[in-house]
Amino acid sequence: MAKEVAVVVTDLVEDVEYTEPVEAIKAAGHNVTTIGFEEGTVEGKHGTKITIDKSIADVKPEDFDALFIPGGFSPDQLRADQRFVDFTKVFLAKNKLTASICHGPQLMIQTGLVHGRTMTSYLTVQPDLYYAGARIEDESVVIDGNLITSREPKDIPAFNEAVVKALA
Amino acid sequence: MAKEVAVVVTDLVEDVEYTEPVEAIKAAGHNVTTIGFEEGTVEGKHGTKITIDKSIADVKPEDFDALFIPGGFSPDQLRADQRFVDFTKVFLAKNKLTASICHGPQLMIQTGLVHGRTMTSYLTVQPDLYYAGARIEDESVVIDGNLITSREPKDIPAFNEAVVKALA
Repeated sequence: MAKEVAVVVTDLVEDVEYTEPVEAIKAAGHNVTTIGFEEGTVEGKHGTKITIDKSIADVKPEDFDALFIPGGFSPDQLRADQRFVDFTKVFLAKNKLTASICHGPQLMIQTGLVHGRTMTSYLTVQPDLYYAGARIEDESVVIDGNLITSREPKDIPAFNEAVVKALA
Repeated sequence: MAKEVAVVVTDLVEDVEYTEPVEAIKAAGHNVTTIGFEEGTVEGKHGTKITIDKSIADVKPEDFDALFIPGGFSPDQLRADQRFVDFTKVFLAKNKLTASICHGPQLMIQTGLVHGRTMTSYLTVQPDLYYAGARIEDESVVIDGNLITSREPKDIPAFNEAVVKALA
């Protein structure tokens, strides 16, 4: 059965961390809604234009089965806006599938809900997660129940496989 | 007496958080050495070209009286390189003047030395610092002994005043 997947993203996302997982999720038959500050277009670190389907103002977490947070410099900008923090918090608090790669977990730190979770992230964010109470594993993909995290672009194949399996 | 000030920076720094404090420090008669991954030029978020005087490979903390870390997306890239973390750690551990604005304190988290310090930073980094054990104040400039921190571009005048006073 097709699942509804929310992807939160803004400018300076790490391009392939958006494009490749989204392609894999769609190829597995699920629906992706790309959510940003406002409808329109944002641009990745390497110039990829990404269409924002819906503004964060116009979505509710209950409309989605899963959340995906790509990395790069996008998550740090999203966490400056409490609406993205609240949106993310619902997925973690209700134990809905939450997947993120690279800097994506920065957005989770602001929810206060990473304490005690087993996770990974980009190298630079690992101490932030550690101090926030997460247990860090330096693996290509770390699966803690409905929380799936990866470190960096080279982990994308393992990440996609885990996410697609979890959505099935 | 002129002080030697190290500034650590790379691409996507918040332009004015580099240019304006550097101008103020030089205007007060001090010497600035801009340090990056390698000699050459980097580019700020808004296109400012910044000359890197020295590679991190060619400097020692003991050659400097103070360290300044501008913000933007520069500090998160610097903290991926242990040489910048070790460089920063010496200033904090030896209680030398350490000043940073916006995302700059991200680089300090990796040193393990923010615990118990009173600081501020850009909004998004405040929880990271809190979890790392710092006490956060939401003020334009926070002075804790030789540690001076500010939040964002609008705090630059107060930041510059504090840094120039501390260098005097």
